[in-house]
Amino acid sequence: MRIDLRETAGILKESDNILFLCHAHPDGDTLGSASALAHALSAMGKRVKVDCSDPVPKDFSFMFEGFEREEFEPELIAAIDVADIKLLGKEYEGRYQGRIQLCIDHHGSNMMYADKVCLEADSASAAEIIYQLLKELNAEITPQIASCLFTGVSTDTGCFRFSNTTVRTFEIAAELAKLGADTYNIIQVFFETKTKTYAALERLALDSMRFYCSDRCALICVTQDMYKRSGSDESETDRLANLPRQIEGVLVGVSMRELKDGNFKASVRTHGDINASEICKRLGGGGHAGAAGCTLYGTKQQAINSLIKEIQAEIDAFTID
Amino acid sequence: MRIDLRETAGILKESDNILFLCHAHPDGDTLGSASALAHALSAMGKRVKVDCSDPVPKDFSFMFEGFEREEFEPELIAAIDVADIKLLGKEYEGRYQGRIQLCIDHHGSNMMYADKVCLEADSASAAEIIYQLLKELNAEITPQIASCLFTGVSTDTGCFRFSNTTVRTFEIAAELAKLGADTYNIIQVFFETKTKTYAALERLALDSMRFYCSDRCALICVTQDMYKRSGSDESETDRLANLPRQIEGVLVGVSMRELKDGNFKASVRTHGDINASEICKRLGGGGHAGAAGCTLYGTKQQAINSLIKEIQAEIDAFTID
Repeated sequence: MRIDLRETAGILKESDNILFLCHAHPDGDTLGSASALAHALSAMGKRVKVDCSDPVPKDFSFMFEGFEREEFEPELIAAIDVADIKLLGKEYEGRYQGRIQLCIDHHGSNMMYADKVCLEADSASAAEIIYQLLKELNAEITPQIASCLFTGVSTDTGCFRFSNTTVRTFEIAAELAKLGADTYNIIQVFFETKTKTYAALERLALDSMRFYCSDRCALICVTQDMYKRSGSDESETDRLANLPRQIEGVLVGVSMRELKDGNFKASVRTHGDINASEICKRLGGGGHAGAAGCTLYGTKQQAINSLIKEIQAEIDAFTID
Repeated sequence: MRIDLRETAGILKESDNILFLCHAHPDGDTLGSASALAHALSAMGKRVKVDCSDPVPKDFSFMFEGFEREEFEPELIAAIDVADIKLLGKEYEGRYQGRIQLCIDHHGSNMMYADKVCLEADSASAAEIIYQLLKELNAEITPQIASCLFTGVSTDTGCFRFSNTTVRTFEIAAELAKLGADTYNIIQVFFETKTKTYAALERLALDSMRFYCSDRCALICVTQDMYKRSGSDESETDRLANLPRQIEGVLVGVSMRELKDGNFKASVRTHGDINASEICKRLGGGGHAGAAGCTLYGTKQQAINSLIKEIQAEIDAFTID
């Protein structure tokens, strides 16, 4: 059942012992949104915890400062920024199947697996929804909470560069800055700092760039061998996703990475009317209109072929020469 | 003489036949600020023109749509975002020497060459000052004016990533977005689009990266040969300036480019307390605390040596191991 912000606030007000779940391979939005909400509810006297099947990367640890680790039997289980229960990770999917009472999300592709779903698909980030929810709850937004939310707002918009960025995104960013979010350092860490190993991987990835579909598609492919040569690993590949689409004239940018089992994960980023989610859905994946992903099976060439076929079909549907 | 925003507004209100001058090698801030102010004053019935000794690059041409080209003898000559009269370019420097009545600028290093100077060194861009000036003038901010200003605000802050970005920067960005600035396309053009020639140049430049000062300084050097090999030219080098500073642990990032006469221009970007302007001043250049530039003479190695010497001195002054 879809519910609005007011109803969501009502559920949270009436609840205690709340568990917030983040998606696996956690990013700034799922962690920032869940931790911001948890801090605010904790300050209102509730027992809360945030959990994720993968460890929290160290760049996000500031979000969890001040939380006391307490064990309790959750009365309310809420998933934050989790479009599909599968995205919780295999183990958590099994553990929480049929038990998730609330989901707060901004993915149009949400699978509606929770009892109640607060879904705003026009929000660039879950953090934008949480910001409004905190207003609805009359919660105090401390500098730490503002920093958690600013991390979500900035990372899910590529630092205000993606097409999901709206007037409201800028307004909320300004509000969070005013409330004491550490905007400069957050942006430095997530957008303006490259490890030497990442910089080496990026160069190898850029060397692998190939063009398809009359230069409207650019594709890079990161192999296991490139991790070895650069000293990097797959934890550093997310930032590569945006690079192919930056080339002038490219409508679809693809960043593929070889998995340890030899298959490939593809991250697809599009411009204009080209729908990345449609492309990836046909290959068993999903996401947003401008940014989506899927897993590809077979050899590298087979993986590329199957993806390019769908990309070509999507480009043909939307472009007229 | 320093004047404030209200006095500046007063001068503009009382004037007609106004010439706004931009600095040579014009960027989004000088052009966006001057064109925004010119549009607003034109709508108030005044005759205005904007001039620059270099041609306006095509990405900025939207700023000048709707202007009628009229010739008149200027009664007020105002320089916008021009810290030093030399920056007008040789010919204009000679033509306007001693004739500039007003300067609106945000460079702490302003040489005070104009009769009256409206200087706000804590503004990330001249466009932030112009936005407030338009409020002071009760001028209507049309979507085109908002786009001109947003271009200045975003380009001079590296799309909100540089340390000059303040709460006010975010607030003004949000206001401009609300007023109809074409934020998405502006950001795409100036930050998310690379020509194939630029992408090729960037790879060559990254290959040239060397580390100095115990890895606290990273330096890239673009040679005339790299322009030939990539098909690019010096008009595309500005965007490289930010890359060396992005490497983890680097406090000073340097982007050098070989001039046609064999000498070098250096662009210096710093983190934290390291003052780029101080480094460049000692070599005859100038700029802001976080971003400055200078010209270096001699061979490539001599140029690097003289720069690294000043960088090491600046690092030594501010870091304790």
